[in-house]
Amino acid sequence: MTGEATMPGPLSVDGERLVRRLLELGSIGGLPGGGCARLALTDDDAAGRNLVMSWMLDLGLDVTIDAVGNVIGTRAGREPGPPVMTGSHIDTVRTGGFYDGNLGVIAGIEVIETLADAGVTPRRAMAVGFFTNEEGARFAPDMLGSLVYAGGMTAEQAHDVVAIDGARFGDELERIGYLGGSPCPGQAPYAFVELHIEQGPVLEAQHKRIGVVTGVQGISWQELTITGQSSHAGTTPISLRHDPGYVAMELGSFARRLANDLGPPQVATVGRLQLQPNLVNVVAAVASMTVDLRNTDELVLRHAEARFADQCVTLADAEGVVIESRSLARFEPVTFDTQVTDLIELAATNRGLSTMRMPSGAGHDAQMMARLCPTAMVFVESVGGISHNVTEHTEPVDLVAGANVLLDVLHRLAEQENPWLAT
Amino acid sequence: MTGEATMPGPLSVDGERLVRRLLELGSIGGLPGGGCARLALTDDDAAGRNLVMSWMLDLGLDVTIDAVGNVIGTRAGREPGPPVMTGSHIDTVRTGGFYDGNLGVIAGIEVIETLADAGVTPRRAMAVGFFTNEEGARFAPDMLGSLVYAGGMTAEQAHDVVAIDGARFGDELERIGYLGGSPCPGQAPYAFVELHIEQGPVLEAQHKRIGVVTGVQGISWQELTITGQSSHAGTTPISLRHDPGYVAMELGSFARRLANDLGPPQVATVGRLQLQPNLVNVVAAVASMTVDLRNTDELVLRHAEARFADQCVTLADAEGVVIESRSLARFEPVTFDTQVTDLIELAATNRGLSTMRMPSGAGHDAQMMARLCPTAMVFVESVGGISHNVTEHTEPVDLVAGANVLLDVLHRLAEQENPWLAT
Repeated sequence: MTGEATMPGPLSVDGERLVRRLLELGSIGGLPGGGCARLALTDDDAAGRNLVMSWMLDLGLDVTIDAVGNVIGTRAGREPGPPVMTGSHIDTVRTGGFYDGNLGVIAGIEVIETLADAGVTPRRAMAVGFFTNEEGARFAPDMLGSLVYAGGMTAEQAHDVVAIDGARFGDELERIGYLGGSPCPGQAPYAFVELHIEQGPVLEAQHKRIGVVTGVQGISWQELTITGQSSHAGTTPISLRHDPGYVAMELGSFARRLANDLGPPQVATVGRLQLQPNLVNVVAAVASMTVDLRNTDELVLRHAEARFADQCVTLADAEGVVIESRSLARFEPVTFDTQVTDLIELAATNRGLSTMRMPSGAGHDAQMMARLCPTAMVFVESVGGISHNVTEHTEPVDLVAGANVLLDVLHRLAEQENPWLAT
Repeated sequence: MTGEATMPGPLSVDGERLVRRLLELGSIGGLPGGGCARLALTDDDAAGRNLVMSWMLDLGLDVTIDAVGNVIGTRAGREPGPPVMTGSHIDTVRTGGFYDGNLGVIAGIEVIETLADAGVTPRRAMAVGFFTNEEGARFAPDMLGSLVYAGGMTAEQAHDVVAIDGARFGDELERIGYLGGSPCPGQAPYAFVELHIEQGPVLEAQHKRIGVVTGVQGISWQELTITGQSSHAGTTPISLRHDPGYVAMELGSFARRLANDLGPPQVATVGRLQLQPNLVNVVAAVASMTVDLRNTDELVLRHAEARFADQCVTLADAEGVVIESRSLARFEPVTFDTQVTDLIELAATNRGLSTMRMPSGAGHDAQMMARLCPTAMVFVESVGGISHNVTEHTEPVDLVAGANVLLDVLHRLAEQENPWLAT
């Protein structure tokens, strides 16, 4: 950075408008008990897209749709060149809340609208987008739209992806009218900043208002199938057992010890475990389980994987069972740009908001955009750490605080000399 | 015992007839891949009953049917008085084999037929029976017929039991023609001896031919429901988790350590475990599991239960979850009569068959009959320890060996002076 890291003036977003739009979007696909379901490329997703795009068009943005349905609205700057970009996604999981993804998109529109309302036209263009199928709840992989935007998958490959309900991605995209002509991969922005709810309990627990997201954890998902010998729980002495259920539970216990040994930010989770035949008085024949390991440090994550694999070998030998392992997903950690994270921290501090630097434990579109340009994220608190749930909630005061930090950072990026050229 | 513990003469069962009858009975309710399914009081059970009863009648036995469908065939002795009794059950689980239960009934008929063919009429009457619904695969509780026979439940209570398929026990009994007039509880025999396959791997592992069964393990079944806080596997640090899945797996690991600490015959099994929502990247909200603890010593079993309960409290506190526990079943251990077990051991040894004393890990009708009279059991090997499975198998040589031991023991009991009166 050059020495000019002062933040722009006293503009603030229209918090009432921001919250009203979040609730209006949340009403599409609304669920009886609260929350909403707008799985990617469904009719409800289409209705949500139409609403958000109408706000972009009302604001006079130049709206483009690309070959995988990513929608980007751009407001020209005083000078030509790539835009400062923000955005997120508006698809949800089946039991989604109102804020995951939606906040980043609507806050992005709010930032541009705030500047426009104030008659401010920054040096650089500003863009806000929503990426298709971030959740992965209907089509795999998740973050598909931003992955294609960033060149990690071709649009043609994406079109051939088949949904959990059997529908083809390309067909569904065309059906809902969002098969656009803009090319993929997309234009590299000048910078990308995404505002998102934390989806975890750390900000709340630490009593901090703004999370300065330094990167995204690397993810290792494995599925283990453990095959032993089913036997009678009463007649089979412990010494003669080949119990895959016991081995699975020992591995679950080990995963926790491993996370504790390595310390934060290492996490380890066994979220899925099934026994066959799953009867009270029968030693299982087969156990299947998943192990989710995450760390911000690729070397530590590899170490965790290696220690877990060693433990599998040890336990398989000791119990006389066979353990087969299959990788379900493996992403290396992403480190965000320190100049952008510094700007986020400064903006929040200037607003009197407490901050903490933290990795994201979940995947986000920003990690794909980080392949293209300097990128970082802003987190605001999720009450109770709850997300992907109809009770997901962020207080309005935090929604507005996050949007104001986004405003200041995007404005600053849109006005600054180009420090990237100097590095 | 008096000093007259010599065994009767050189009679042996007709092994070919024994095996042929086992296969003929097994063909009723036969399954495509082998094995058979004759759930209690189904049409297939009725067909099996009719076949076995026809063998009893052909043999000239006095056949009675009681109010819960227990069928007993008696051959008179030289003197009046209660019979020496044997028997087991002919109902099977849904994926049953040919030997579990069936062996004890058909071998009992074989013993009486062998004596009759040889023109031998012992001092005491001899009886062979099959008890209704031993498996409990259709009606709860298991061992229902022998429980009622021994006075542990009234016939009226049994009639009102409802099957897993909604049928009423009493109605089904009448429908298949096995609602008889003999009173319950039944007559106390002079002694009861049951031949059964081991249903476990111990005899095979120890290379022993005959198991001298000293009693039946006490059983403690608990169901635990562990409630925590569902959260995101990536965004929730370990220190902020309330993970019921982790606690369940720690308890599974602890159950094994507990069994190892207490040593044989203590066993501990977590056969059922379910996580909700059971997804790779979600810390579970609820885990439910069962724990099956067994020991031949009631005090040790209580100690095991107490240590497991303590561990639940410790883990619930440490992780911040709530553990609710419910007893699914609790039976105290049963100890068989030492004079009968001594006779079994002597008979096997006289036949040149290696023996070992062992508890039964599974429940059997004999444990109910032990309330009424001196009782014990004879085990023969189950290949691979497999039972309740269509691949259940016992070699013909072992079927015959077990039947010959049963012959010698029943014959001896039917001829001996009454040692019970002296004790």
